[in-house]
Amino acid sequence: MSSNLIVQKYGGTSLGSLEKIKGVAKRVKKSRDAGKDVLVVVSAMAGETDKLLAMAHELSDLPERRETDLLLSSGERISSALLSIALHGMGCPAVALTGRQMGLVTDNTHTRARIKEINASRAIEILKTNHVVVCAGFQGVNDMGDVTTLGRGGSDTSAVALAAALGADRCDIHTDVDGVYTCDPRIVAKACKLERITYEEMLEMASQGARVLQTRSVEMAMKKGVRLQVLSSFEDVSGTLVVDEDEIVEEAVVSGIAYSRDEAKITLQGVLDQPGVAAKIFGPLADGAINVDMIVQNVSVDSGRTDLTFTVTMDDLQRAVAALESKREDIGYRQLLSDANVAKVSVIGVGMRSHAGIAQSMFKALAEKGINIQVISTSEIKVSVLVAEEYTELALRTLHTAYGLDAV
Amino acid sequence: MSSNLIVQKYGGTSLGSLEKIKGVAKRVKKSRDAGKDVLVVVSAMAGETDKLLAMAHELSDLPERRETDLLLSSGERISSALLSIALHGMGCPAVALTGRQMGLVTDNTHTRARIKEINASRAIEILKTNHVVVCAGFQGVNDMGDVTTLGRGGSDTSAVALAAALGADRCDIHTDVDGVYTCDPRIVAKACKLERITYEEMLEMASQGARVLQTRSVEMAMKKGVRLQVLSSFEDVSGTLVVDEDEIVEEAVVSGIAYSRDEAKITLQGVLDQPGVAAKIFGPLADGAINVDMIVQNVSVDSGRTDLTFTVTMDDLQRAVAALESKREDIGYRQLLSDANVAKVSVIGVGMRSHAGIAQSMFKALAEKGINIQVISTSEIKVSVLVAEEYTELALRTLHTAYGLDAV
Repeated sequence: MSSNLIVQKYGGTSLGSLEKIKGVAKRVKKSRDAGKDVLVVVSAMAGETDKLLAMAHELSDLPERRETDLLLSSGERISSALLSIALHGMGCPAVALTGRQMGLVTDNTHTRARIKEINASRAIEILKTNHVVVCAGFQGVNDMGDVTTLGRGGSDTSAVALAAALGADRCDIHTDVDGVYTCDPRIVAKACKLERITYEEMLEMASQGARVLQTRSVEMAMKKGVRLQVLSSFEDVSGTLVVDEDEIVEEAVVSGIAYSRDEAKITLQGVLDQPGVAAKIFGPLADGAINVDMIVQNVSVDSGRTDLTFTVTMDDLQRAVAALESKREDIGYRQLLSDANVAKVSVIGVGMRSHAGIAQSMFKALAEKGINIQVISTSEIKVSVLVAEEYTELALRTLHTAYGLDAV
Repeated sequence: MSSNLIVQKYGGTSLGSLEKIKGVAKRVKKSRDAGKDVLVVVSAMAGETDKLLAMAHELSDLPERRETDLLLSSGERISSALLSIALHGMGCPAVALTGRQMGLVTDNTHTRARIKEINASRAIEILKTNHVVVCAGFQGVNDMGDVTTLGRGGSDTSAVALAAALGADRCDIHTDVDGVYTCDPRIVAKACKLERITYEEMLEMASQGARVLQTRSVEMAMKKGVRLQVLSSFEDVSGTLVVDEDEIVEEAVVSGIAYSRDEAKITLQGVLDQPGVAAKIFGPLADGAINVDMIVQNVSVDSGRTDLTFTVTMDDLQRAVAALESKREDIGYRQLLSDANVAKVSVIGVGMRSHAGIAQSMFKALAEKGINIQVISTSEIKVSVLVAEEYTELALRTLHTAYGLDAV
């Protein structure tokens, strides 16, 4: 295990053209010239995965998952080979490795496989010969030797898993933004780049809609103690370090504000308020692998009936509605309402644990702007609210100011 | 070993669009519905390999061969996955296999590897479950588990090798022409499709410039006794069977006429006519892996010096000239002349073995049209001549008529 090793992951937009691939090669070579051992993990060139997926859907309404994995994995194989060729072209010896060659073994859940183990012996041997290793991200093999993929953003997870397996100094996630911000800078102009953020906060940011890192990669980094950095593929500036809480000297109460427009709300009116009804509602959804996020059950108002509201992702809305309508008799509700014009806004910070009143100040700030809160959910370090989608930007700016996050 | 198995290979132009892939899927399904076990071998979609190769060359003057193989093999993986998905979409169960998964093990010569063995156990198991097997052509793995490729047209060889390993009834090579013709129909309008041709003739046709089949695939089919058929990917007409000589009832003296414009002529004037000089000339060319095809040494005319003429492919011309100029002192020639405006025209037929005068009638026919023959080479079943390129079409039409091949 080299303690001199750095893992660098480059996303699709960083590899979107041959010019950009050359740029990445220069950046990798620079690290190696500075004396580092470098293992690179690459995504497919921007747009490639979507293009392949669209082709599959044109050929079949429901493309076989095993064949889809074989298809999609080609994107990362191509970019790993091209980056390795570009490195050779600059006199920097490199070896491209596929998921199988890097020993990334997964379970058999095609299109969203989970890593079972990494046998990185070949990568270790190659690093010893002073070559850069360029790994095709997003992919592994199952026990049968079939290609599997790790789901959208899976290259982040490949990178963290390899960094953990090889005991790398740090795992640098190079992307088209230069770090993690207090809020999306495209919406909140006063958003600031965070120098450090805790794993827990990053996890909440990622799962609440910030698209910087795949949620699973953060979970894995936290579990395995991999030091993560999110930084630019193009500029030479330091990014955001994702670290343990004890590495953060001065804790902010709120570190960041995330949002997701990928939400839809379903309300079942006139549900019988009796034991077992929740199981009747959420059972069919679970059977259809539909994830339910926020849930609110109103107080029973008339004759033992109540309303139940919950959220699912936009992708799942149609299937969720169909599943519930097919069970209408069984569940026994009066009416089903759905609303796709909603957004979830979340304030996140480990400091909440020791500070009371964060939720209250959030509700107050939103109320002052006339923003109605539809659903609320909280965790130890997060408060999320569902609002009408048209209020998203206003809510984000209001909260960013209210929690003192605006850049000076 | 199923004796009910048919191997079908589809080339890049047959898979050049999603519509065409659907067409191929229909054709495969039809064979399966007729009760056949089907193993399909696919090339990359038309243009894909060239596109990837151009990218590699833009990133490096001399792309690493190992990485180039990883890169290029993606094209066939994509088309195999897409065809398998299309088959599923039509209710025809299929499994796509990569070179590794079909057990195609090669030597370590990246970009032009040779097959060492095929362990087709997985394909056999899949066929037993009544699935179509869709193999990515052109690729295998070496002993280290690295991807190798079999050179241009390598999918033909993959198909024949799999047909041999599995004891298939026949190996059908589906392409954009509907068979092997007596001559290129784009040039000779009266060219006829051959119902049958011998392996030896097909081998000469392929190596003399007919682009229907990769030479190595014919060699392998001949050696392993695989019945080959060349036929259309688009039309439902029988093609050309490539068979043993004893399967041909009525032998034509000349079966076909091939040509190649990919030729260049080099003449060394004033070479010392003494033992060892040929080795001095061809040694440096062999060292540079430059294949020399036709060779003519003139009779010594003055003071023990002679002229020596030979041909190389266009690709190799610059390197051949450079190699010979660097050894000018050592070889001792007066002048080097090169000419890229030449073409090789070959008449081919196993019937030549028992018929005298084929070469003579060739020279006579060409002379009558005023076509000058620059170099001649012969084999047991072939006579080739080098002519000025501008005479190619005239030479082909003249010979086609002279040997009685014109369609009535």
